[in-house]
Amino acid sequence: MTDPARIPLRVSLRLDLPSGGRVGPGKVALLEAIATDGSISAAARALKMSYTRAWGLVEALDAALGTPVVTRAPGGVKGGGAALTEAGRALVARYRAVEAAAQRRAGPPPG
Amino acid sequence: MTDPARIPLRVSLRLDLPSGGRVGPGKVALLEAIATDGSISAAARALKMSYTRAWGLVEALDAALGTPVVTRAPGGVKGGGAALTEAGRALVARYRAVEAAAQRRAGPPPG
Repeated sequence: MTDPARIPLRVSLRLDLPSGGRVGPGKVALLEAIATDGSISAAARALKMSYTRAWGLVEALDAALGTPVVTRAPGGVKGGGAALTEAGRALVARYRAVEAAAQRRAGPPPG
Repeated sequence: MTDPARIPLRVSLRLDLPSGGRVGPGKVALLEAIATDGSISAAARALKMSYTRAWGLVEALDAALGTPVVTRAPGGVKGGGAALTEAGRALVARYRAVEAAAQRRAGPPPG
């Protein structure tokens, strides 16, 4: 395990935007959880973060991209839901594609 | 600049090792500066960090890999120099190769 050319590595990626915004694994996982769970509060619970923090991350992403990443449906009996905008989906897809390319180059990650 | 599929991105990479060690852009830049400058103190000056901090980063890398990344030449009239070990060179090469693969997939970086 001491040959750095062969040691298994897990890639962790951050994308730096021209706006100064940064997109890393935490924000991407949050967007994916919002897409899965259909609400920011459920996604926050799933990731064990406060709603305030989750909302702050979404706002940081909106600001970084200059366009909303999450759309909120009108409230109703069950309250309003949330979904990714097309921009949000495109950001997640691009992050995961770049991450996969990097991990492929690095080789299989640690067990 | 609001289409996340096209916005220029700069990739920043961290490699997580099975030992729990992490290798990011700062440590890699330090190793490259040691290779260029031939000493830890000169590399620290070039990167505007203290010698203590530079030495701590080298020790963290040694521990993460389980093998030294920097070799120190015997002292002499000019004092001992430092160079990368083969493991240190392999680590830098691998990091830069993975980073390049990720940046290729992301497309041309900003600016």
